[in-house]
Amino acid sequence: MAATRLVLLVALVATSAWELPPSLRMATAAQAVEQAAAAVAIHALRPLVGSAGDLGRRGGVSCDSWRLAVEAHNKRDWRTVPADCEGYVGHYMLGGHYRRDSRVVVDEAIAYAEGLKLGGGGKEVWVFDIDETSLSNLPYYATHGFGTKPYNATSFNEYVVEGSAPALPETQRLFRKLIALGIKPVFLTGRTEDQRAITVANLRRQGYSGWDKLLLKPVGFKATAIAYKSGERRKLQDAGYVIVGNIGDQWSDILGAPEGARTFKLPDPMYYIG
Amino acid sequence: MAATRLVLLVALVATSAWELPPSLRMATAAQAVEQAAAAVAIHALRPLVGSAGDLGRRGGVSCDSWRLAVEAHNKRDWRTVPADCEGYVGHYMLGGHYRRDSRVVVDEAIAYAEGLKLGGGGKEVWVFDIDETSLSNLPYYATHGFGTKPYNATSFNEYVVEGSAPALPETQRLFRKLIALGIKPVFLTGRTEDQRAITVANLRRQGYSGWDKLLLKPVGFKATAIAYKSGERRKLQDAGYVIVGNIGDQWSDILGAPEGARTFKLPDPMYYIG
Repeated sequence: MAATRLVLLVALVATSAWELPPSLRMATAAQAVEQAAAAVAIHALRPLVGSAGDLGRRGGVSCDSWRLAVEAHNKRDWRTVPADCEGYVGHYMLGGHYRRDSRVVVDEAIAYAEGLKLGGGGKEVWVFDIDETSLSNLPYYATHGFGTKPYNATSFNEYVVEGSAPALPETQRLFRKLIALGIKPVFLTGRTEDQRAITVANLRRQGYSGWDKLLLKPVGFKATAIAYKSGERRKLQDAGYVIVGNIGDQWSDILGAPEGARTFKLPDPMYYIG
Repeated sequence: MAATRLVLLVALVATSAWELPPSLRMATAAQAVEQAAAAVAIHALRPLVGSAGDLGRRGGVSCDSWRLAVEAHNKRDWRTVPADCEGYVGHYMLGGHYRRDSRVVVDEAIAYAEGLKLGGGGKEVWVFDIDETSLSNLPYYATHGFGTKPYNATSFNEYVVEGSAPALPETQRLFRKLIALGIKPVFLTGRTEDQRAITVANLRRQGYSGWDKLLLKPVGFKATAIAYKSGERRKLQDAGYVIVGNIGDQWSDILGAPEGARTFKLPDPMYYIG
């Protein structure tokens, strides 16, 4: 029942660069061709190892199917990106694919926001997660295996306190649009209260301004991300706010009542927070 | 900030055929190469029209990003597949991609089921949707634009009463595994009670047997899919059943309390049921 087909594909790929350190950017056209060809070969061929019947079972990980399972919340509680998928995830994140996927999510969010009828009392808020939603830690992950290595709190926090994380341009577009519409952004993050100053500095440096609240987790607070974040959203509601939207890169950002009237899941194939 | 890169990709694609009418199968290796090359060219080049800044906004639909947005429930209440994406969706469904994505979902579901500790009273059930979950209507959609045309109740119901829909092999693998583990399958479908006989015949013909219940919607019942299906799950719970799992191709199959202890979303880029 299995047919083997030879596919020859010549694709002209237009990529818009993220605001990343120059070392992570494609330097010259020639290098770009080389790097892209290598990266594409890695992830395009990865799912195709072994016979069709064995795919995804006998060691051969189908990285694009794995990523879809993560995004649709079928794959849960995973600790690291499959080692075989480092090249695939790297190419996804640094090439145009991640940006393109994020753009469609934000286009939907803006269309939804533009269709809202606001009450006029200025009580409508939109909840934004920070890491991999408002700010990108891709410069860190790009030099730490794109999620294939176990989380290292020490080195990651060293990166955070640099305050150099770039903005995610699509999220920033939504953020500014909401302010223009009269919907107030509220940041709600798993970052802890002792990182408030550097987080504010990082956000401002990256062009964010005009948020209504920045809610950080108390140091030493023990709870799951879902319990912590839904509890904070509950407090917002109890204080009279109307959460019209909620956007994050983790399912734990957007699950747990009250979720917000509508939720948006940005892509993140690099890590999982339960 | 945009770099243009030329990517040369030679991919050996191994495809396992679905149980489809011969006319939909890849006939010969030569034809397969030709068809696959055409289909891949359509969907690979589609997202790349225009400059990077325009992607997904000025008419150019990024079909893979659109599909991801559907699967992650960012895109909701859509009526038809974007016309530009017919070739992309067709290739996704008929090639190996849909099957591969489904396989990863079912692998997760089986790993989860195998880890369960059952109570011993035989009350654990697993809820299965039918269309695009247990049975595939791909033979219909393949000849009706792969979801690019508005839903036609007349022609679709003519197809349903043929009772010829093939099983989705990955779902069937889960179904049989659950029975072996002692978890009882319950079908819960938006099909109506007047289609019970043909649905039973179709399921049996396709090798399904041993289900505990087949719950169909009363004719003329007016409610959203979420309200109807969550109401039926509530009745199961109230009758003492423990819903350990729930699998469907629509978010409306798996949203709405009680959802079931764990939910699984199979891919479906062809239609949306709210």
